Amino acid sequence: MEQPTSTLEEAAMKRLLERDVTLEEIAELVFDLQAPYIENITMDRCLENVKQVLRKREVQNAVLTGIELDILAEEGKLSSPLQEIITNDEGLFGIDEVLALAIVNVYGSIGLTNFGYLDKLKPKVINRLDSGKDSSEVNTFLDDIVGAIAAAAASRIAHSEPKLDSNY
Amino acid sequence: MEQPTSTLEEAAMKRLLERDVTLEEIAELVFDLQAPYIENITMDRCLENVKQVLRKREVQNAVLTGIELDILAEEGKLSSPLQEIITNDEGLFGIDEVLALAIVNVYGSIGLTNFGYLDKLKPKVINRLDSGKDSSEVNTFLDDIVGAIAAAAASRIAHSEPKLDSNY
Amino acid sequence: MEQPTSTLEEAAMKRLLERDVTLEEIAELVFDLQAPYIENITMDRCLENVKQVLRKREVQNAVLTGIELDILAEEGKLSSPLQEIITNDEGLFGIDEVLALAIVNVYGSIGLTNFGYLDKLKPKVINRLDSGKDSSEVNTFLDDIVGAIAAAAASRIAHSEPKLDSNY
Amino acid sequence: MEQPTSTLEEAAMKRLLERDVTLEEIAELVFDLQAPYIENITMDRCLENVKQVLRKREVQNAVLTGIELDILAEEGKLSSPLQEIITNDEGLFGIDEVLALAIVNVYGSIGLTNFGYLDKLKPKVINRLDSGKDSSEVNTFLDDIVGAIAAAAASRIAHSEPKLDSNY
Repeated sequence: MEQPTSTLEEAAMKRLLERDVTLEEIAELVFDLQAPYIENITMDRCLENVKQVLRKREVQNAVLTGIELDILAEEGKLSSPLQEIITNDEGLFGIDEVLALAIVNVYGSIGLTNFGYLDKLKPKVINRLDSGKDSSEVNTFLDDIVGAIAAAAASRIAHSEPKLDSNY
Repeated sequence: MEQPTSTLEEAAMKRLLERDVTLEEIAELVFDLQAPYIENITMDRCLENVKQVLRKREVQNAVLTGIELDILAEEGKLSSPLQEIITNDEGLFGIDEVLALAIVNVYGSIGLTNFGYLDKLKPKVINRLDSGKDSSEVNTFLDDIVGAIAAAAASRIAHSEPKLDSNY
Repeated sequence: MEQPTSTLEEAAMKRLLERDVTLEEIAELVFDLQAPYIENITMDRCLENVKQVLRKREVQNAVLTGIELDILAEEGKLSSPLQEIITNDEGLFGIDEVLALAIVNVYGSIGLTNFGYLDKLKPKVINRLDSGKDSSEVNTFLDDIVGAIAAAAASRIAHSEPKLDSNY
Repeated sequence: MEQPTSTLEEAAMKRLLERDVTLEEIAELVFDLQAPYIENITMDRCLENVKQVLRKREVQNAVLTGIELDILAEEGKLSSPLQEIITNDEGLFGIDEVLALAIVNVYGSIGLTNFGYLDKLKPKVINRLDSGKDSSEVNTFLDDIVGAIAAAAASRIAHSEPKLDSNY
């Protein structure tokens, strides 16, 4: 049974699409994370779990806040020095990771590992977002948000697999 | 010996003052928190600890980001529905607490208790900031930030008092 | 429809009862937290939400770990200096708050405030647990765990009340 | 000028050594993390930063608590089901990551990425600790603790390098 989407959920999904991130791309990250551990994992199941993560209000609010800051920086509408910090994606900023952690925590601390891994190696869509920095795009928050949603979805799947072996 | 203030530190302090929050007011919160536990605690010592908290980069970045969002909401410059959520200080938003937690954590998890206490009872300056909601002021992030700085300063003092009794 | 309880869930509930904490007592804390905001809140609804919090694996694991450490300290079975730190409930320990935060975060950061408030004022069952310190009982983790479960249950209720006014 | 070591600090260092983890091995992890970003980084500097991380009380307490639980599990002294969960290093436990996060947070959220990366790839000493699982050793907490100390030390170094480029 489909649950109705809320206004906030629709707004968060719309924002992701406007920034050229599809839920399928996030699901791909989840697939790659989980394939070594879960036999028969499918893209459909990954996508469904990404959607479930996006039903959580804390996730929706983090998505809306982070993308808003990226866009405002892109348009040069923030005050200095925040404008420069976010535009340059300064490594010591930390607030992007703070929002990401709020997303990851929704399915418990086991998601920390996958989030850090994605944020370090920047595979697929995360790499594309991160490379946007060379142009005028600002994705300082968005690349962390995408990694965090994928890590949370992977945790959600793991929690539904009680027989996961101890090396997971 | 005075350490030189950094640009980021100056920017964060300036932002607080522009929003009519003085470091002395934050120090007052710290004093009230610590007076029952530490004999001879002085306002000077509390103020010094507030200043030390503000030397931390994660704190500076949280202050700059939170106040920026408050001001942008006040000026009606955010997109919907984030504009309405922040303007109305919606109780389920959560991102204000997330930024506050980043500040509190700088001196460890013992600050959580004092932060929650201040955020619930809203004494003194926090009450004033929170009442601003009735006018056109938006202090959705600022009231949590002020409570978090005070809680972190209280933790910093506690860490310097090894003989604190077990009921602290 | 009742969902079946898991072994882990049963183990966590059993541990709480063995330490003389009933779910009803935790529900009372939730009731007192929510009564000012939600008309017609009932003890039954609070109890149901406490039970739902206890269905979360991260909560179960935090309960089992924290209570185990309390009991081992009570029996003098920990190594020094951890034995003394936990027995004396040293204010700077912090690991009790860390476990509590893991519980609270299960329903998002809005629970931080209620957790801190309960941990500071120590109403009802929390006070009883905390006073146990005067005897040979060790409840260093348990008082934080109980406050965290109550705060998480209050958040869960708040998330189900979309019309909560902005002062919540 | 050397600061004197505290009793707690000595206890934490002693515990690490008893579990066959040297500070030099942790410093090696830090070196590998930072070498791509910081020219002229030396093992000495990494080691010094590992030592500074271990001066933090929250870190010391997390080390003492985590290793205690590993040892108690090894000796079969925990109650069921916690005994089995920790002995088998169950992937959904999460409390090991919770303690690790407390360590990482001491130098801000920028350490999350490095922690996750180390915890996923398990290089060098972390791999050795993790392989101990095949024998009768239990290092469920210790491998996360070691990764967290390394990640925190890397953050500490990054915070001291204001000119770090934006890709850090």
